[in-house]
Amino acid sequence: MSDFKEQDILGINKAFEQAHISYKKEGGIPIGACLINNLTGEVLGVGHNERVQKGSPILHGETSCLENIGRLPAKVYRNCTLYTTLSPCAMCSGTCILYDIKRIVVGENKTFLGEEELLKSRGVELIVVDDDRCKNIMTEFIEKNPELWNEDIGEE
Amino acid sequence: MSDFKEQDILGINKAFEQAHISYKKEGGIPIGACLINNLTGEVLGVGHNERVQKGSPILHGETSCLENIGRLPAKVYRNCTLYTTLSPCAMCSGTCILYDIKRIVVGENKTFLGEEELLKSRGVELIVVDDDRCKNIMTEFIEKNPELWNEDIGEE
Repeated sequence: MSDFKEQDILGINKAFEQAHISYKKEGGIPIGACLINNLTGEVLGVGHNERVQKGSPILHGETSCLENIGRLPAKVYRNCTLYTTLSPCAMCSGTCILYDIKRIVVGENKTFLGEEELLKSRGVELIVVDDDRCKNIMTEFIEKNPELWNEDIGEE
Repeated sequence: MSDFKEQDILGINKAFEQAHISYKKEGGIPIGACLINNLTGEVLGVGHNERVQKGSPILHGETSCLENIGRLPAKVYRNCTLYTTLSPCAMCSGTCILYDIKRIVVGENKTFLGEEELLKSRGVELIVVDDDRCKNIMTEFIEKNPELWNEDIGEE
């Protein structure tokens, strides 16, 4: 990948770590995220899906990550990369569009394909790394919890 | 408006009430929302922007309303109308697309124009009622708090 940055290994590892914590330690949905400032390399925060843990319909991996970080001015978001284990759904894609997060690194998009075309049409640089860890944990989760997964993506 | 339902007066009143509480009682951003089940007429819940109150970047009026209600299956969202005092931003529009909320009644879109075209392109019925209360409270808020408002919509 020509646009791969050194921070990307750290970012996707931290996102996967969050997915793993959510699933294996907390009994939740295995999707995690991490936000890194591209200018400083600083990890601003991490988060994971909290549907089960907090009974939340809006705390997906990506939104949970931003919520854990708290309020930031627009100029910070614009210089960040969001790492997420799974292709971002419409809510999380819309959140990136709102805050003008211009670069997203996605663990995998095989178990769920989110709004990647919408993101690209708004100028977001989207990199899918096709990470086996991310695919395997989601595949196992979906097989064991099809109803919970459908609820999380608004399907019946 | 040919598609106006009887529940819409209740819905937009409740959304405005939430905006008013946020701004006048809690010192927050005056945007509120309400979700009503079209099949039963039941008010499922309400919410308002919580950026100031909870230091949250993701609790806009609409997302806060869904968070307050908690987890719902897809089939419930599909038969709901979401009432919001202000034209929905990309995050809140994406949330409606995720959960297939097919009908949105908007108080006003003069102080901020959200992702209305995207919503319509996905088949959402969008009704803007041009409510003076919603316009006036946002106009006053934006004049007094331009930086806070810009932060909420990812602008500098």
